[in-house]
Amino acid sequence: MSHSITLQKLAELVGGTLSAGSPESVISGLNSLMEAGPGDVTFLGNARYLPALKTTRASAALVPEDLDAGEAREGLALIRLKNPTLAFSHVIRFFGPPAVEFAPGVHPTATVAEDVVFDPQKVSIGPHAVIESGVRLGDGCRIHAGVYLGRGVQLGAECVIHANAVIKEYCVLGRRVILHSGSVIGSDGFGYELVQGRHQKIDQVGIVQIDDDVEIGSCTTIDRARFGRTWIGEGSKIDNLVQIGHNCTLGKHCIIVSQTGISGSTRLGNYVTMGGQVGVAGHLEIGDRVMFLAKSGVTKSIHDAGAYTGYPARPLMEGRKMLSLPAKIPDLLERVRVLEKKLAALEGEAVRS
Amino acid sequence: MSHSITLQKLAELVGGTLSAGSPESVISGLNSLMEAGPGDVTFLGNARYLPALKTTRASAALVPEDLDAGEAREGLALIRLKNPTLAFSHVIRFFGPPAVEFAPGVHPTATVAEDVVFDPQKVSIGPHAVIESGVRLGDGCRIHAGVYLGRGVQLGAECVIHANAVIKEYCVLGRRVILHSGSVIGSDGFGYELVQGRHQKIDQVGIVQIDDDVEIGSCTTIDRARFGRTWIGEGSKIDNLVQIGHNCTLGKHCIIVSQTGISGSTRLGNYVTMGGQVGVAGHLEIGDRVMFLAKSGVTKSIHDAGAYTGYPARPLMEGRKMLSLPAKIPDLLERVRVLEKKLAALEGEAVRS
Amino acid sequence: MSHSITLQKLAELVGGTLSAGSPESVISGLNSLMEAGPGDVTFLGNARYLPALKTTRASAALVPEDLDAGEAREGLALIRLKNPTLAFSHVIRFFGPPAVEFAPGVHPTATVAEDVVFDPQKVSIGPHAVIESGVRLGDGCRIHAGVYLGRGVQLGAECVIHANAVIKEYCVLGRRVILHSGSVIGSDGFGYELVQGRHQKIDQVGIVQIDDDVEIGSCTTIDRARFGRTWIGEGSKIDNLVQIGHNCTLGKHCIIVSQTGISGSTRLGNYVTMGGQVGVAGHLEIGDRVMFLAKSGVTKSIHDAGAYTGYPARPLMEGRKMLSLPAKIPDLLERVRVLEKKLAALEGEAVRS
Repeated sequence: MSHSITLQKLAELVGGTLSAGSPESVISGLNSLMEAGPGDVTFLGNARYLPALKTTRASAALVPEDLDAGEAREGLALIRLKNPTLAFSHVIRFFGPPAVEFAPGVHPTATVAEDVVFDPQKVSIGPHAVIESGVRLGDGCRIHAGVYLGRGVQLGAECVIHANAVIKEYCVLGRRVILHSGSVIGSDGFGYELVQGRHQKIDQVGIVQIDDDVEIGSCTTIDRARFGRTWIGEGSKIDNLVQIGHNCTLGKHCIIVSQTGISGSTRLGNYVTMGGQVGVAGHLEIGDRVMFLAKSGVTKSIHDAGAYTGYPARPLMEGRKMLSLPAKIPDLLERVRVLEKKLAALEGEAVRS
Repeated sequence: MSHSITLQKLAELVGGTLSAGSPESVISGLNSLMEAGPGDVTFLGNARYLPALKTTRASAALVPEDLDAGEAREGLALIRLKNPTLAFSHVIRFFGPPAVEFAPGVHPTATVAEDVVFDPQKVSIGPHAVIESGVRLGDGCRIHAGVYLGRGVQLGAECVIHANAVIKEYCVLGRRVILHSGSVIGSDGFGYELVQGRHQKIDQVGIVQIDDDVEIGSCTTIDRARFGRTWIGEGSKIDNLVQIGHNCTLGKHCIIVSQTGISGSTRLGNYVTMGGQVGVAGHLEIGDRVMFLAKSGVTKSIHDAGAYTGYPARPLMEGRKMLSLPAKIPDLLERVRVLEKKLAALEGEAVRS
Repeated sequence: MSHSITLQKLAELVGGTLSAGSPESVISGLNSLMEAGPGDVTFLGNARYLPALKTTRASAALVPEDLDAGEAREGLALIRLKNPTLAFSHVIRFFGPPAVEFAPGVHPTATVAEDVVFDPQKVSIGPHAVIESGVRLGDGCRIHAGVYLGRGVQLGAECVIHANAVIKEYCVLGRRVILHSGSVIGSDGFGYELVQGRHQKIDQVGIVQIDDDVEIGSCTTIDRARFGRTWIGEGSKIDNLVQIGHNCTLGKHCIIVSQTGISGSTRLGNYVTMGGQVGVAGHLEIGDRVMFLAKSGVTKSIHDAGAYTGYPARPLMEGRKMLSLPAKIPDLLERVRVLEKKLAALEGEAVRS
């Protein structure tokens, strides 16, 4: 992080407007609002951190276009733009460590079957990676160390498969798919039939199909279909430690946060969002733009767009109410006790009168 | 999927009775009720999909013996048998991709200690697998690429250890155990004692013992015992991303669904079933044929067979009631409000009279 | 387990006082209270197992100093000391399998970049491990088979990285850090901005910093910071299948049990404890010595030390009450029904009178 840049150039770099601060001031680093010091640029990415804009020791901040200048510490240079979080990526790239460069070629310790179809000038295969027979790799693919690609796996152009990830036989990935370390794509679905007291394994011979621009986190598992395919739609992003059961379908541009589990044969529409640790039962249909808050338990199909929460999952307002209602019970108990007492008194009077 | 087969032969293959459709019609593929087209055979494996039997475009369907013919689309050939889901496995095997054949031998890149006991004519060891000193492998074992078997590990006949799975030192597997990719058997249990403000590690020198016909999914972790053994009983099936703590005992033929966690020293009987994301506290006893629904939290020992749900887990009907009861509170509040008003009026009258 | 030892020597070994039993009796093995037999030593580590002290078949037991002798089976030799659980580690080490010895050196199949800084006489690097350029390894480090250490990773002295674990580029570990198999340190944080209907990836160029004496279980994922660091404080212990989001900070000596997830940018103080399957929202502050019971859902910052439970998490007593309150609703409903009936009767009388 040894670069430096003037405020004016920084504003140009991020595509913003310098609205306070001297254009010639020099910025030499970056940090969060709380941790930044003199010479650093920071950003306001979340309204909850607004108070920190008064106390930050940073020299400059990327802020939303409509920020009231009175919200910022006096002397803090402001660069205004539409999306400070996104724009800060330019800052990070400028000051950050150099990206590891793409080095095509096959490491001598990799085990690549003879019939694998790829251009060794345009693909990188790391140490101890194993590429089985029948695999096809698009140009620009990076297969990192220790990765296993099973028989007949197909990858579109520019996929990145991180160290020690596993893709089992016949699975198909589109272009620019990123798969992080330790994840397993295409293991057997969890299917048994109880026959004479023993769980008999049901063959799982389908595949997993992952479309363009999907990113999948670390130690996530997506099971192959019993037959046909488990299907992850274009542009969907899946976090770490997520479980996707066999024959599930995710639509396009879904967001699935860490430790969520989706049971077999459930189908999601487009732009479905799930917070962390959500659980979804099998064989359900979830409509476009449905959002489940963290820890929701989804037991029925839900077709209407909107936010849902709780177990069983209900529309947000209703679900929140369900969570808060038990707190009213102590008061109810007391009021009923008072009613009973008063009524008994009245009944006594009624008898006497 | 280039095969084809007549309906008559298909009925024979699956062990069913052709009750509608021409025996000579040709079937050339398979699919689910919703996705099948002309020439495909499908199956009814779940009563919830019954309506799709009217609308499927498939040419034939495997259905339960007692299906009312009126439930199926006119012209749909029906093959009747006891268990359509199970029988469909024969169809899948007929049309499916050829299974990857068993190829005995040790890949030249594998690292196998000199004293490992196995028959290289009857065992397959994949690229970059590491087999430490003292390991014994039964005939028919397949150790896939990148697998690590620690010192003294013992595997019975016909085990399959998938790519990049790990089994730590001295663990013992029975026959026909399947371990999927990324899973870790025999890591240290999570045990510390707080000594002068620091968590001091407690040695974990026991093992994990896994009996015959157990299958374990991807990225599942089963910790070694502090001493003695963590023990998975015969025929139990464990899904992906499951955590089994040190010194747990699972009985025979248990089913543990994805993302469930069982804390240390808990003992399950036989045929225990846990839905997804169940959590079980440590040092509990769970009786035979107890079933926990998804997301249950188990805080006490449960001995009576039956289904349980909720947190804390209660018998199914009671647990479901607990979930639905808060919804009655708004009505209760209103009724108490009315009672209070009416009672105040009566009290006023009583005073006046 | 072929050793044997006299009771007197055993008492010395564990630092306890022999208060019943003959000093010359011979102990030849160890087991739990329930499973021990004649000749075995056992221990009472948890008050819940007190009844077993009457029925155990063991010959000797490590017990707390103040145990009432009447609680133990007649004839059971007792060795009294402060912490039987901790002291039993000495017994386990005495009878247990020999620890795998430290064997320095680089396995010939390992792939170690030329500029890696380490002393090959004092470091062990296992088969098929991959150590990228710029890595530094402290003396006494053990890098097991199949481990991946990305560019520029730094490890302090005596770290143990178990088979197939992954540490991504530039992450920094202190001394004596233990990382179990299948875990992934430093994968990209889960960050996107929605731009014209597509989730655009936000660069994650920070690191993970793990301080001295941290232990991390199997298949746990700790994401690298967007910039700056995700930071695990000294002495903290993290179980299996845990998710720690980007830019989180854990203080010193925290305990995070299996399958817990902590969302991005959340900061924990020291001695924070989380039971299994806890979920914590992002951008929160959790104070020193806060403890969350298993399955809690934490939606707000909590500063006061103490135990919390439920979703949303509340102080223990209040949280437990919230869980039990719905059970009072059926009785409330009945009492209100009775009140309504009686009141109607009274109103009738009032009208008539």
